[in-house]
Amino acid sequence: MKKYIIINGPNLNLLGKREPEIYGDKSFEDFLITLKAKNPQISIGYYQSNIEGEIVNKIQEIGFDYSGLIINAGAYTHTSIAIRDAISAITTPSIEVHLSNIDAREEFRRTSFIGPVCIGSISGFGLHSYSLAISAFLKQ
Amino acid sequence: MKKYIIINGPNLNLLGKREPEIYGDKSFEDFLITLKAKNPQISIGYYQSNIEGEIVNKIQEIGFDYSGLIINAGAYTHTSIAIRDAISAITTPSIEVHLSNIDAREEFRRTSFIGPVCIGSISGFGLHSYSLAISAFLKQ
Amino acid sequence: MKKYIIINGPNLNLLGKREPEIYGDKSFEDFLITLKAKNPQISIGYYQSNIEGEIVNKIQEIGFDYSGLIINAGAYTHTSIAIRDAISAITTPSIEVHLSNIDAREEFRRTSFIGPVCIGSISGFGLHSYSLAISAFLKQ
Amino acid sequence: MKKYIIINGPNLNLLGKREPEIYGDKSFEDFLITLKAKNPQISIGYYQSNIEGEIVNKIQEIGFDYSGLIINAGAYTHTSIAIRDAISAITTPSIEVHLSNIDAREEFRRTSFIGPVCIGSISGFGLHSYSLAISAFLKQ
Amino acid sequence: MKKYIIINGPNLNLLGKREPEIYGDKSFEDFLITLKAKNPQISIGYYQSNIEGEIVNKIQEIGFDYSGLIINAGAYTHTSIAIRDAISAITTPSIEVHLSNIDAREEFRRTSFIGPVCIGSISGFGLHSYSLAISAFLKQ
Amino acid sequence: MKKYIIINGPNLNLLGKREPEIYGDKSFEDFLITLKAKNPQISIGYYQSNIEGEIVNKIQEIGFDYSGLIINAGAYTHTSIAIRDAISAITTPSIEVHLSNIDAREEFRRTSFIGPVCIGSISGFGLHSYSLAISAFLKQ
Amino acid sequence: MKKYIIINGPNLNLLGKREPEIYGDKSFEDFLITLKAKNPQISIGYYQSNIEGEIVNKIQEIGFDYSGLIINAGAYTHTSIAIRDAISAITTPSIEVHLSNIDAREEFRRTSFIGPVCIGSISGFGLHSYSLAISAFLKQ
Amino acid sequence: MKKYIIINGPNLNLLGKREPEIYGDKSFEDFLITLKAKNPQISIGYYQSNIEGEIVNKIQEIGFDYSGLIINAGAYTHTSIAIRDAISAITTPSIEVHLSNIDAREEFRRTSFIGPVCIGSISGFGLHSYSLAISAFLKQ
Amino acid sequence: MKKYIIINGPNLNLLGKREPEIYGDKSFEDFLITLKAKNPQISIGYYQSNIEGEIVNKIQEIGFDYSGLIINAGAYTHTSIAIRDAISAITTPSIEVHLSNIDAREEFRRTSFIGPVCIGSISGFGLHSYSLAISAFLKQ
Amino acid sequence: MKKYIIINGPNLNLLGKREPEIYGDKSFEDFLITLKAKNPQISIGYYQSNIEGEIVNKIQEIGFDYSGLIINAGAYTHTSIAIRDAISAITTPSIEVHLSNIDAREEFRRTSFIGPVCIGSISGFGLHSYSLAISAFLKQ
Amino acid sequence: MKKYIIINGPNLNLLGKREPEIYGDKSFEDFLITLKAKNPQISIGYYQSNIEGEIVNKIQEIGFDYSGLIINAGAYTHTSIAIRDAISAITTPSIEVHLSNIDAREEFRRTSFIGPVCIGSISGFGLHSYSLAISAFLKQ
Amino acid sequence: MKKYIIINGPNLNLLGKREPEIYGDKSFEDFLITLKAKNPQISIGYYQSNIEGEIVNKIQEIGFDYSGLIINAGAYTHTSIAIRDAISAITTPSIEVHLSNIDAREEFRRTSFIGPVCIGSISGFGLHSYSLAISAFLKQ
Repeated sequence: MKKYIIINGPNLNLLGKREPEIYGDKSFEDFLITLKAKNPQISIGYYQSNIEGEIVNKIQEIGFDYSGLIINAGAYTHTSIAIRDAISAITTPSIEVHLSNIDAREEFRRTSFIGPVCIGSISGFGLHSYSLAISAFLKQ
Repeated sequence: MKKYIIINGPNLNLLGKREPEIYGDKSFEDFLITLKAKNPQISIGYYQSNIEGEIVNKIQEIGFDYSGLIINAGAYTHTSIAIRDAISAITTPSIEVHLSNIDAREEFRRTSFIGPVCIGSISGFGLHSYSLAISAFLKQ
Repeated sequence: MKKYIIINGPNLNLLGKREPEIYGDKSFEDFLITLKAKNPQISIGYYQSNIEGEIVNKIQEIGFDYSGLIINAGAYTHTSIAIRDAISAITTPSIEVHLSNIDAREEFRRTSFIGPVCIGSISGFGLHSYSLAISAFLKQ
Repeated sequence: MKKYIIINGPNLNLLGKREPEIYGDKSFEDFLITLKAKNPQISIGYYQSNIEGEIVNKIQEIGFDYSGLIINAGAYTHTSIAIRDAISAITTPSIEVHLSNIDAREEFRRTSFIGPVCIGSISGFGLHSYSLAISAFLKQ
Repeated sequence: MKKYIIINGPNLNLLGKREPEIYGDKSFEDFLITLKAKNPQISIGYYQSNIEGEIVNKIQEIGFDYSGLIINAGAYTHTSIAIRDAISAITTPSIEVHLSNIDAREEFRRTSFIGPVCIGSISGFGLHSYSLAISAFLKQ
Repeated sequence: MKKYIIINGPNLNLLGKREPEIYGDKSFEDFLITLKAKNPQISIGYYQSNIEGEIVNKIQEIGFDYSGLIINAGAYTHTSIAIRDAISAITTPSIEVHLSNIDAREEFRRTSFIGPVCIGSISGFGLHSYSLAISAFLKQ
Repeated sequence: MKKYIIINGPNLNLLGKREPEIYGDKSFEDFLITLKAKNPQISIGYYQSNIEGEIVNKIQEIGFDYSGLIINAGAYTHTSIAIRDAISAITTPSIEVHLSNIDAREEFRRTSFIGPVCIGSISGFGLHSYSLAISAFLKQ
Repeated sequence: MKKYIIINGPNLNLLGKREPEIYGDKSFEDFLITLKAKNPQISIGYYQSNIEGEIVNKIQEIGFDYSGLIINAGAYTHTSIAIRDAISAITTPSIEVHLSNIDAREEFRRTSFIGPVCIGSISGFGLHSYSLAISAFLKQ
Repeated sequence: MKKYIIINGPNLNLLGKREPEIYGDKSFEDFLITLKAKNPQISIGYYQSNIEGEIVNKIQEIGFDYSGLIINAGAYTHTSIAIRDAISAITTPSIEVHLSNIDAREEFRRTSFIGPVCIGSISGFGLHSYSLAISAFLKQ
Repeated sequence: MKKYIIINGPNLNLLGKREPEIYGDKSFEDFLITLKAKNPQISIGYYQSNIEGEIVNKIQEIGFDYSGLIINAGAYTHTSIAIRDAISAITTPSIEVHLSNIDAREEFRRTSFIGPVCIGSISGFGLHSYSLAISAFLKQ
Repeated sequence: MKKYIIINGPNLNLLGKREPEIYGDKSFEDFLITLKAKNPQISIGYYQSNIEGEIVNKIQEIGFDYSGLIINAGAYTHTSIAIRDAISAITTPSIEVHLSNIDAREEFRRTSFIGPVCIGSISGFGLHSYSLAISAFLKQ
Repeated sequence: MKKYIIINGPNLNLLGKREPEIYGDKSFEDFLITLKAKNPQISIGYYQSNIEGEIVNKIQEIGFDYSGLIINAGAYTHTSIAIRDAISAITTPSIEVHLSNIDAREEFRRTSFIGPVCIGSISGFGLHSYSLAISAFLKQ
């Protein structure tokens, strides 16, 4: 059974917990249950941290055994060379994911350190972006 | 029956026709047959042009009746404000698609005029990027 | 009888045809009738294209016989050196026109390749910008 | 009777007074007489100062009673945020005017702090630029 | 018999037709006759368009059979990634040609998207630049 | 009795006089009465001008006798090296004050020539910013 | 009783502990006792961390119950979009505070990611900057 | 008898009046007496203002009768296009003068709007810079 | 016995553990044993973390007692002002070390926040860079 | 008999002497013999130096008698204003030549100080670039 | 008897030798005779080289014995850090001199590496600039 | 016996000869004697020049026989592409060395053309930097 993992960066733990009008009323955990149900043939792990270096730790830990990493580095997308280097160092292929269309936001969000070391990028579809990343890995 | 359309920009007509080692051996038309077969409940139109203004024409023509536009503007992604304005002017929602991971190519390919006026963006998955865009529209 | 011509660039064909709340409910053709009626002593031609090179073609075609060219190059204002070169090459004097105040929009709309080769520029007055350009030519 | 005012910035007082080969042989005052004669149904005031802050004072003074302000801020166009803020603070709508086509001059004259807070801009037609601004206000 | 082709971009159709004091009094067609006469052992085709995408079309059409492409993309030199991509996609080697010394003109003409995908570049020698390109292909 | 002075730059004379929905309904003079009442142990002078050079004059005039200068240079904050030099030249320490949070406004308002020559800066608290500056001087 | 909290970023734990000639001889804890004594009607919490993500954690934890957050993000002011996003996500209003006048230091310290999402900013008054922030919240 | 004039910009009135350790203990007036004594064959006028527009006024006033203008625009050197335009408009030749070597100061003092419209520039020699400018005019 | 310490930043824990063809087959711990054996007269501590703030913590902890700090901040070299400030705050002198020649890599790796606050920098010699840093401290 | 000269800049003396796989196996001297043989009606001089100022010396020495200068300034192309000024100062017309297509190399090689003062430029054809330059001068 | 020296950089040896309409008809040697005659109480040496490093050599050679160095580094003004460093290393004070007003020429001539390490700068007065520099040293 | 060589660039000949308080009281020649004594098993050559092209000459001369080149290009580090190209052209590996920590100096010293073509870089340790470079070559 192939193993995949989703890693979420800073502030993404707020999803669905507070301010549903902003973040939607679905927590990431609820979404994950649905996602797993729709993809019973694979294992989907999940990790979230607000701490840049802990994300580096996690990427190193899982990065040689898993079949795919789906990473939404949040704000670290635009500032973290450390996460970029971790993704480069591992053999697991990565897909960059964003809830919102980052091209349509502030100028400083248009630079991604993560993008160039991933195989592809999906942004703008809310939680559905994660489902599409799974589809991309499975070539569904 | 909902109507979707794929619009491809310059040089994308070479796909699968020549140089299979570069572009793959599948023509876009072959791929389209498979894509339609997998999504029988919707209509999927297709248009390709190397001419910027003809793409603007097409967007205007289809842009108020269709349920979704999947656009791979190719090189015009980085230079065409005219296509951007056309996408802004229509009511059909658009998704930006790229075969390759444009973040990992030349610096001048990292600016997208198209991105900010689409609902989302998918890049790096070859022809499968188009399938994912369909999935995104259908929330599959 | 002196001949003048108005050339409109990409997406300006949508004026008054759709989305009246955005573009106003007057088509450019309707406006043109009024404009001609107010200036019976001159001939006012009109051409619109979404294709950059066709605009170049038109400028070359009319550019040595007419008394004045009123050009609203739309999005090509900010990207087309080809149209700039065509305007430079002809002997007919040109006036740059814009419906909206382009200074108050996105940063990338603040650069004009067309402006430096025109005798003057009028922007921000909607369709009335064209009337003012006629007045400018006629020194009314 | 509607009141309009023209405010001219630094060095524009030299018009027609000296060096007619450069500035033309018509003083602004002479031009103003003609302009008023052609528009008897409105009142047209006039103010000129070389001092940035005095222009701010004048804009504040007239800026809530007049129907329109025509401003040629001269060199302050490119350096004065204070005049910009004054125009923003008043309710009278403003039109930016220039004698020459500023797009065709030095690079530092291509930035306008004034433009984005005006309804429109007219440049390149010499003194006739002011007449066109009156026409723009009167929708003639 | 080896086949070569010359592709000229926007506004180059004006050569020798009008304004001989600017463009010289020789049309490109006249020049071509001389060029062919001097190189009877090869075939030299010719294509001109003001439309960016038509140039892309032509490059795709001839780009796998010809021994060499001489391209003067005119204004598109500085703005067209689409033509660049077309040149990259074909197997025919290309030489970039310019009538004038583009380094000595406006700043925006000093960037070439075409240059990096050609084998070499010749500029500044008027119509003779094309002859030199033929010589370069033939190693004369 | 220690002497302090508040110097306000361009357009700050509009406070509370017009457009209460924008500027609040309290004039600066009213606020000053309250401020003085709350700090009876010190003298608080006040000066406002829309003219950059008059502000320089005032700074020079008071700048060697006063215990503190509170300066809200308004738009001149971003353009005036002359005011900066005046503040540098005097011995009275200065505090920079702004009504709004200038970091959250247009890009060109994020550069301050005044800030580097003041001991500190307070912005974003409306008229209360001035009270805080007094507290800062008095170490209350 | 209203709750406020002060969050200090990296290296601010060194205050008063070492090198009194640089950082002063007062520890932040000592200062906090005085600050609380002067404001008995409110509760003032305190948190310090050198770890960016822990600061994000803390902001999320307190950010919906407290009446105000006083944040001195230290070096993270200039690099952390994650802290910015956390401040944006919460409902508690924030004030940015700095010991030194950051405008007068190195160029890279003049960009603040934190400032634009706070209601205001106070810098340059040493530990007194925190007292002023409390006054700002209490409108004293 | 030929007439020359020295125009000093903002803050230069402080010379020799205060802070002799910074500005020297000689007032500009004292220096002027010596300068006149050394050049009895010419008339040397003097004007100082802290107000940009008053300097423009003065330049216009004297600028067609005098044999030479020596201008130390102080801080306005780096910000005033209005003074530049005034110098361009007059027929009197101008020399730019600075007390200090502006090249060795802050980055923003290295741009001069005044320099390009003067015949030459002298900086770094304190008050002696003015004497050298007189020598330059007299070709001594 | 003098104490030195080596601090390694993110991803440097992968050295010799995985992918020997990239990182070499020697772990940092193995290298450290050799390094200590060659320098028996000194104590050499070691610390590695992927977390920026933990590196700050460590620098503060050891920074006043040790004779020297050898820091390879990895990716944080280019993004961490917090580590820079920590190095500035301590009295222990620091040497910046890199395995690879960072000048020959991506553009964004050519900016170092760490370098300017160290006494020197050694890069490009693999693990031997650390030995050279020890030699630099011991002036061997 | 008309005299032409080729001047080669730094490192071009290595041609054909060492590393034939990089520089080709033909020395420049060998090539020169062939070039002269093919153009017996003209004299072709040759000079090479690695020293910028010696190239300036040579240009001055020959620059008023020769019919043409072919210059490959090598690395000095991108850094030497002195060579540019020498070429500007002489009356002999110059052609810029490069072995490789400099547009396709590092960013810093895309700026040429030499190009704007030459009549034309030829690059990318190896040693044949020099032959083409002779042809360009002779209009062959 | 005090010793001064003038050092001229590249292409300044052409002065008065050729092209009198550009460089004037006076050679620098002729000018030097006049200059010495007017200043009999001092010794004035002279050195010119087109080679950057020879200028460095000369500066080192004379730089500790002379009372003043007058340097016109010509094109090296804008490119030579080596000459700057030599001037910084010596104890002889230096004055930067230019024949033309470099502020009014190409953009790349507006940066001076030499200026910041000289006591002052004189430009725009032709050969008279050197006389003024002597006057500056002698405080005449 | 392996041969190494040290090449020093401009102004480094002043070391220890003058101004000992700045450059130390040890000449480079004295230092070299010590360095050789400590490394008797290798030959260490030495060359210094202030002339860029002579350094290129020397690099070409020694660059295929020596085991290592230690280069301190001084000011040419930041301006010389010619030296960079010479180092690229030779087979001898090079190490870049600096006496001072160039990262902590002026902005224009932070760009190195030399660094990217060396195997490594050592800066900030005074003359000891050269010893460390020898150690680096010998892997001591």
